[in-house]
Amino acid sequence: MSQNPLKKHIQSFQGCLHGGLIKENAEKYRLSENEILDFSANLNPFKTPFDHPEYGLDFMKLAAESYPESYNYPDNRYLKFREAAASFLNSGITSDVRLTMENIIPGNGSTEIIRLFCQCVLDEGDKVILPYPTFGEYEIQCRLQNAEPVYLPQEKIETLTAGELKEIGAKILFICNPNNPTAVLRTREELIKLAKICEESETVLFMDEAFIELSDPAESVCDLAAGSKYIFVMRSLTKCFEIPGIRLGFGIAHPEIANALNNARLSWNLSPLQENVGAALMTMDGGVNSDYLQKSRELILKEANFLKDELSKIWGFKPGVATTNFLLVDISERTIKSTELVERFAKNGILVRNCISFNGLGEDYIRIAVRTRPENEKFIQTIAVVFDEWAKDFADSELKTALTTHKNGQTQNKRETCEYYPCHFDGQDCTFCYCPFYPCKDERGGGKYIQSSKGGQVWSCVDCYVPHIPPVVEKMLEGLMEDGETEDILKKEWEEIILPIMEERDANHVLAVCRKIKEENGKAAKN
Amino acid sequence: MSQNPLKKHIQSFQGCLHGGLIKENAEKYRLSENEILDFSANLNPFKTPFDHPEYGLDFMKLAAESYPESYNYPDNRYLKFREAAASFLNSGITSDVRLTMENIIPGNGSTEIIRLFCQCVLDEGDKVILPYPTFGEYEIQCRLQNAEPVYLPQEKIETLTAGELKEIGAKILFICNPNNPTAVLRTREELIKLAKICEESETVLFMDEAFIELSDPAESVCDLAAGSKYIFVMRSLTKCFEIPGIRLGFGIAHPEIANALNNARLSWNLSPLQENVGAALMTMDGGVNSDYLQKSRELILKEANFLKDELSKIWGFKPGVATTNFLLVDISERTIKSTELVERFAKNGILVRNCISFNGLGEDYIRIAVRTRPENEKFIQTIAVVFDEWAKDFADSELKTALTTHKNGQTQNKRETCEYYPCHFDGQDCTFCYCPFYPCKDERGGGKYIQSSKGGQVWSCVDCYVPHIPPVVEKMLEGLMEDGETEDILKKEWEEIILPIMEERDANHVLAVCRKIKEENGKAAKN
Repeated sequence: MSQNPLKKHIQSFQGCLHGGLIKENAEKYRLSENEILDFSANLNPFKTPFDHPEYGLDFMKLAAESYPESYNYPDNRYLKFREAAASFLNSGITSDVRLTMENIIPGNGSTEIIRLFCQCVLDEGDKVILPYPTFGEYEIQCRLQNAEPVYLPQEKIETLTAGELKEIGAKILFICNPNNPTAVLRTREELIKLAKICEESETVLFMDEAFIELSDPAESVCDLAAGSKYIFVMRSLTKCFEIPGIRLGFGIAHPEIANALNNARLSWNLSPLQENVGAALMTMDGGVNSDYLQKSRELILKEANFLKDELSKIWGFKPGVATTNFLLVDISERTIKSTELVERFAKNGILVRNCISFNGLGEDYIRIAVRTRPENEKFIQTIAVVFDEWAKDFADSELKTALTTHKNGQTQNKRETCEYYPCHFDGQDCTFCYCPFYPCKDERGGGKYIQSSKGGQVWSCVDCYVPHIPPVVEKMLEGLMEDGETEDILKKEWEEIILPIMEERDANHVLAVCRKIKEENGKAAKN
Repeated sequence: MSQNPLKKHIQSFQGCLHGGLIKENAEKYRLSENEILDFSANLNPFKTPFDHPEYGLDFMKLAAESYPESYNYPDNRYLKFREAAASFLNSGITSDVRLTMENIIPGNGSTEIIRLFCQCVLDEGDKVILPYPTFGEYEIQCRLQNAEPVYLPQEKIETLTAGELKEIGAKILFICNPNNPTAVLRTREELIKLAKICEESETVLFMDEAFIELSDPAESVCDLAAGSKYIFVMRSLTKCFEIPGIRLGFGIAHPEIANALNNARLSWNLSPLQENVGAALMTMDGGVNSDYLQKSRELILKEANFLKDELSKIWGFKPGVATTNFLLVDISERTIKSTELVERFAKNGILVRNCISFNGLGEDYIRIAVRTRPENEKFIQTIAVVFDEWAKDFADSELKTALTTHKNGQTQNKRETCEYYPCHFDGQDCTFCYCPFYPCKDERGGGKYIQSSKGGQVWSCVDCYVPHIPPVVEKMLEGLMEDGETEDILKKEWEEIILPIMEERDANHVLAVCRKIKEENGKAAKN
């Protein structure tokens, strides 16, 4: 039997890539889970309300109360949870609309809600509009239904017309607000217009408001869902209450849609514990404007801006807007790719989200969560560590390339090919474009520690010319061409070739030679 | 906008009917949830292992350990749960096969597994074989996919040929073993044959073994799933560990199928608490043959047979086989229908499963869980109470019919129409076929308490002729035809017409009259 009973597109199905892979990274890099600082999952940095005794919520008490209920099947109407969700939302609604439990569909995490909605709306071949970049679960759940994605850039959404929408003829348009991973927050005004043309075109506007409580709940359009079958809103408790391991989210819909979805969902998708925890969190005084959530937003705004400012100071790091508890960072100017950068962070115990799985971002972006000040500072400091390590490894790898180039008899002068030539002096030998001794930390060659823009100390080679002096390079290559471990040879060469030049008796001579060459060519070393 | 974006068949979708509706019934009958004894959900009557300190499992300890993990996303590989599931199953496998975590798909309850499998296998219009009667979720999940059910009687499965299977061309054949609600347990030998023809016909044999640990795990075929893409086995932790409120189940499949399903399932369908509870329960010493599960099976066998014996003694109750923790009871010989019977039980605080939602059973069956001896005795005793109440209400309703009949001038003698005529004496008036005073509990009319076959006391009217004496009936009808509350009139008539006859001064006379009539007709009262 070589046949397979699964649908063709399921046989090779791949799930969605997500952040928060603490266990996997702990195994991979042999770290203890506690050592890891997770900037790859976007959770409320103010910590869960259960960690704040002032809010009077006790997780273990809820667990103890829920335990006896676990001996019976849950009441699958989930009245308590749905009522709590409606009152939570009503606390933030500025229109006259009041939601009731008839509008609410409970979910075992919000991804279950995305899945349920797709399952109930999409047939094979149906079109769905996926603005990019955005959260990956929409596409995954649409693909599970064998629907056909139509990709539009996020900016296109602002000018989308009813005519264009009708022409596309999609069943669903997914909007994440604020958008994951860009953090761009659309206004309620813009969304009301979008909702109108969606309704006209019979395309459901699927609003994912998973981060709205940590951004600006006033921009929510959850109230619109009550009055239209073509607006569906999704909320998550995972992010705003920092409970990804409890699994809670819900959908908000027209009562007719909500009723059908409640009939179509799993009979018992929530446990009594989930229902009780959800109800307790959502009935905190003030709802979306509770003291807890207000303080959360204050902290996030402050820290998002701190991170944005600090990152802006680092060459090649371009942070996006600071509207919520995560920042998208464009690293396209750096030589390092996001995949490698993220791995290097992980080795140092910091998880960062590689954005390669977000359509349109390639290996040019990372996404970082906004955390507390000491954690954010640790992150900024680790950037220096990571780039130090990277530069060292990069030099190693460049040395290998240099040796291969030399063996092949190819040129070692990059006058014609390198945009940075001459970085030290005209006539320099570029074989060791990246110094194999970096960072030697020996000031006698002219190198020194400098203050980096981000506060840390970085070893700078701007004033060291030694590994570019043609006779030095020639002598080093002679040794490196011989058999033996490169590391051992380099150690020997450091002592026999480099050190004698750098030590007192020769340093002045070398520097004088170098300065002379430099002056002769009237060129300044590249800063 | 009168349009609806949901698929047509979802717009009017109805979920599956299930037992265990404790909260709903408590509301409906104004009972406290604690008063209710639930025979409608089939759970292990030996209670959860957490209730047995001797097994060393502590739910609150697991909750406390899982709590810190709730601050992070679960590791969606669920290694601990899947490894525990494989070792749990291996403890009961008699073949050479050893399952690994590569065979396991974790589920937020086993219904999620049914749903996932259907979603990954079934396209619109695909055929599925549903033997009847059986668990309703298969059909519901197939209908969600818009698949087309082919119904076959359960007995047909035994003689099903590869040729017939091929002709049907179904994607899935669902077998529940032991079968819910009939409790029939198929043998491993029979299932191995069935698996073979299923594989030949490229129809997946979907084996639901949710109750196998409470029946006979030696009949499991979970090992076969490892070697064939056309056998899928499902297990549940809900029943055997009495944890319906935790939501745990899993699928067992060929590694290629399991891998695809693990990619297609919700990223985080289990919480850390679910994973930890599941792993703790499944790694109890002995696995499916742990001391806990062995004792569970012993208790169930004993109590299932007790219930079967007791029910067999009650007229019109025909219990099915006693193989596991529930019994199907045929009540088709009784006048009362299952829907009314179940409601009457509920009013008395006992939930019983109405089998009307099981294809093929109509209103002729109830299903009852096997519970502990005191609870099972309570159930048996409640049958007497329920039928007492039913008889009284039935008499009320018959009185109404009698009055309508009388008003329409129709006959009150059932000589030609009633198979029981004459139940008391020839010439009797049948207007009050069911006595409006039942049970009057006044022995002066000839009625008396008798010992019922099931142990309780039942009021018997066999020797009371009063409400059938033509002049008595005539006088009663005169009053009942007048305006006023029937209840008030009856009360008055009891005092003014019936009591004077039954009291000492008239009783002998009445009895003498009746006996004379009886003797004259040489007929014995129907027993």
